[in-house]
Amino acid sequence: MSEQTISRRRLIGAGTAAGLGAMLGRVPGVGAAGSERTADVVVVGAGFAGLTAALRVMQAGHSVIVLEARDRVGGRAFNRPIGGGEISERGATFVGPTQNHILNLAGEFGVHKFPTFEDGDNVYVNAQGQRSTYNDQGPLGTAPPDPTILPDLIPAILTLDQMSTQVPVNAPWSSSNAGDWDNQTLASWVADRSVNPNFRKLVAVATRPIFGAEPRELSLLFTLFYIAASGDETHPGTFERNFNTHDGAQMWRFFGGTQRIPLKMAHALGNRVALNSPVQQIGQANGRVIAQCGSLQVRAKRAIVAIPPTLAGRIEYTPRLPSNRDQLTQRLPQGTLIKATAVYDEPFWRDAGLNGQAVSFSGPANVTFDDSPPDGSKGVVFGFIGGDEARKFQRMTKANRKAALLANFKTYFGSRAGHPRQYFETNWSQETWTRGCPVGIAGPGTLLEYGPALRKPVGRIHWAGTETSTYWNGYMDGAVRSGERAAGEVLAEL
Amino acid sequence: MSEQTISRRRLIGAGTAAGLGAMLGRVPGVGAAGSERTADVVVVGAGFAGLTAALRVMQAGHSVIVLEARDRVGGRAFNRPIGGGEISERGATFVGPTQNHILNLAGEFGVHKFPTFEDGDNVYVNAQGQRSTYNDQGPLGTAPPDPTILPDLIPAILTLDQMSTQVPVNAPWSSSNAGDWDNQTLASWVADRSVNPNFRKLVAVATRPIFGAEPRELSLLFTLFYIAASGDETHPGTFERNFNTHDGAQMWRFFGGTQRIPLKMAHALGNRVALNSPVQQIGQANGRVIAQCGSLQVRAKRAIVAIPPTLAGRIEYTPRLPSNRDQLTQRLPQGTLIKATAVYDEPFWRDAGLNGQAVSFSGPANVTFDDSPPDGSKGVVFGFIGGDEARKFQRMTKANRKAALLANFKTYFGSRAGHPRQYFETNWSQETWTRGCPVGIAGPGTLLEYGPALRKPVGRIHWAGTETSTYWNGYMDGAVRSGERAAGEVLAEL
Repeated sequence: MSEQTISRRRLIGAGTAAGLGAMLGRVPGVGAAGSERTADVVVVGAGFAGLTAALRVMQAGHSVIVLEARDRVGGRAFNRPIGGGEISERGATFVGPTQNHILNLAGEFGVHKFPTFEDGDNVYVNAQGQRSTYNDQGPLGTAPPDPTILPDLIPAILTLDQMSTQVPVNAPWSSSNAGDWDNQTLASWVADRSVNPNFRKLVAVATRPIFGAEPRELSLLFTLFYIAASGDETHPGTFERNFNTHDGAQMWRFFGGTQRIPLKMAHALGNRVALNSPVQQIGQANGRVIAQCGSLQVRAKRAIVAIPPTLAGRIEYTPRLPSNRDQLTQRLPQGTLIKATAVYDEPFWRDAGLNGQAVSFSGPANVTFDDSPPDGSKGVVFGFIGGDEARKFQRMTKANRKAALLANFKTYFGSRAGHPRQYFETNWSQETWTRGCPVGIAGPGTLLEYGPALRKPVGRIHWAGTETSTYWNGYMDGAVRSGERAAGEVLAEL
Repeated sequence: MSEQTISRRRLIGAGTAAGLGAMLGRVPGVGAAGSERTADVVVVGAGFAGLTAALRVMQAGHSVIVLEARDRVGGRAFNRPIGGGEISERGATFVGPTQNHILNLAGEFGVHKFPTFEDGDNVYVNAQGQRSTYNDQGPLGTAPPDPTILPDLIPAILTLDQMSTQVPVNAPWSSSNAGDWDNQTLASWVADRSVNPNFRKLVAVATRPIFGAEPRELSLLFTLFYIAASGDETHPGTFERNFNTHDGAQMWRFFGGTQRIPLKMAHALGNRVALNSPVQQIGQANGRVIAQCGSLQVRAKRAIVAIPPTLAGRIEYTPRLPSNRDQLTQRLPQGTLIKATAVYDEPFWRDAGLNGQAVSFSGPANVTFDDSPPDGSKGVVFGFIGGDEARKFQRMTKANRKAALLANFKTYFGSRAGHPRQYFETNWSQETWTRGCPVGIAGPGTLLEYGPALRKPVGRIHWAGTETSTYWNGYMDGAVRSGERAAGEVLAEL
């Protein structure tokens, strides 16, 4: 069986096509005999986190069943074919240095990386709408070298990086300044330091793609944690890694797209992965855990719930979750991020000395990247539309959205950008089984008050997902790390 | 049938005892023939909001069915018998001037109000642990007349009240300062104005009972909205009404307890109210809405969902909700509030010239009230344990919690307080069908970005619940108002 077909094939059916037909004509599961399966471990969610956990459990010689709500694996990693055997990533796209867990996993499955295209200049559109270009391999990286903003920008980034060194990634709430830092938003902190309104706007230009959020939505403590987490055990995290291509989290891509890895993982797991199987209930009793989706019951010794906390909170638990865990799930909403992609016959911007990357005060797409196939046989550029820009964008008509996006691209890359062969959007807030991207975000108070509940198992239920990771939280690497950690917890108990 | 029995009787059964038995032995609804009912309107939730909406729909001559998840009506209004035919309120307790919608509704059902006991002095325990008493009917009301704090306290309250006049209760996000005020927390605003750490602590003493939250959890804009909403169309809201007894929201109580009103409403609605009926799905198609709980389907022309947004977000909608509505439900968590109640043979504190009210820097119970029966035949005092105090309290053993609470009460009211006849706690964060109290709270960004989705109907689904109210949001009056508003929306379309 090919990788591609796995994403469509229904490996085992749980009988829960919970769509309109089910609503109008029948009750999910009613009339069908309930089926039952047993395994050592049941995993909820077949994104990077859940598949990694399942794989490690299987490799350790234990039985495992993965229940996935969607008709495909990969979660926030999702390839879209663009013809000619090539794809563009609707979600997770890049990897970079210190992300060794996703890199090792990719290597394990023979998925190789290649450098993100970065020959040539970046485009910058400043607050006055003036376009310029610059080279991003200098000391500032992708940060635009705008002389009206640098006096605020450089000390702000250095200060945030410095503050982040005081935030332990495994317990941000234990930082000696946690009380002060979780009392305020990133927006408050920036406002207290800067009287330059354009600098404040630039901070939002950065937080929209990184968090899918405005600076007002982010606790300062959470922001510092996120920075601290952007590294590994031997390389302290920096804010720069989040927005840089060169030496940053956007440095490399994977041949065939990021979803190739979960597709291959699912292939290895075979019929241990059940698609179209949204879990409604998880019960614990008599030394067992039981996951229920429609008429299918999976009985196991341990469960790993590998979905965002806001989705985990929508499952019914018996007995109910401790209130600190339940209230955590009420307080870690998914960010708001849309990706809009244009496909051209060729990456024409390269001929003009541009690398396809733009940073712009004028949205909807404040940031763009080149996502062309490695051989440049097509030209693909996508824009990130995040936070307030995303909320505004999704209120527009389809035609107006496309026009606004292509107007951005024309400003950045010239008139040819106005005539793509293909144009498509991916609004992760409209995905029932994700509810927002790229990550769950914490406002003031959440980490301080509920952080310890992020990873603490509840009886036989363990928690995974990139939102639970100590490093590269919000990234594929964090998801893989979380799956390994949860598998380790479970294997120690089997 | 008596009022009391309604709360226990299962009026119509939906077959969804979704407890451990259901998890282990059978799938809810499986094997049972699905039953179906039809009405003009289906209401989800039998708290004040849902019952008010249902009553108005019924009174207008239309058919209605109310689906309630619990085995009782009343939501956050819940009487606990304390013997001798008397009760103490586990949840909502007080009403006050400008709350005319709950007062009128109570009058309609012959439930009369009486004054909260306030003869005598309040107790104050300052930041140094020193106890004093004061009269709360002066210009400061319940705010303690601490000379070390007043220089911060009085201007802060007056400034918040003044700022709140610029916040339209029906659209706080349209205030000309909304961007600035929703960028920051109440904690940031207080910190910017005050160098007195004790004043900052006193702000938390106030927000814990009012919001079940710390100042860091509250957007300044949301706080100002809440103040503006603490009044009516002709009396501007004030912060003071939230914490005052005299002329404030704690001025009166109801004979027989607040739950008597929903019990009488349910009696009037008769078998239109179905208990034990948690709604799992709401579908819309072909000009109809269908609410599903277990094997029961209710088909209607319109639905009114009258539960907190965080719970409304856990229902499965077909088609899915617009993303701005779904992301709102991810961003309005319930507060964290516990009520601990002690029952004595008599209200002995009254003989000592005390009215049973205390304000204290030392928790767990930062605030107490006299909840004795109107004839004083027993002595009842309860403490509010909110925000960080509640999160700390619920990690303690049962014995330690009781000891800590009674230590508070002894400090406030003397040694007799250490020997209650009864002691009980109500932790609303552990209530599956409430998930926190007293209200859904908004951190920075939520109102500005998602506020318009609070009340906007989604097709044939209308939203009620105190969290949707323009006045007395978070109070019974707001719940009643929201039910009336939602009923009005629906009746205009039938």
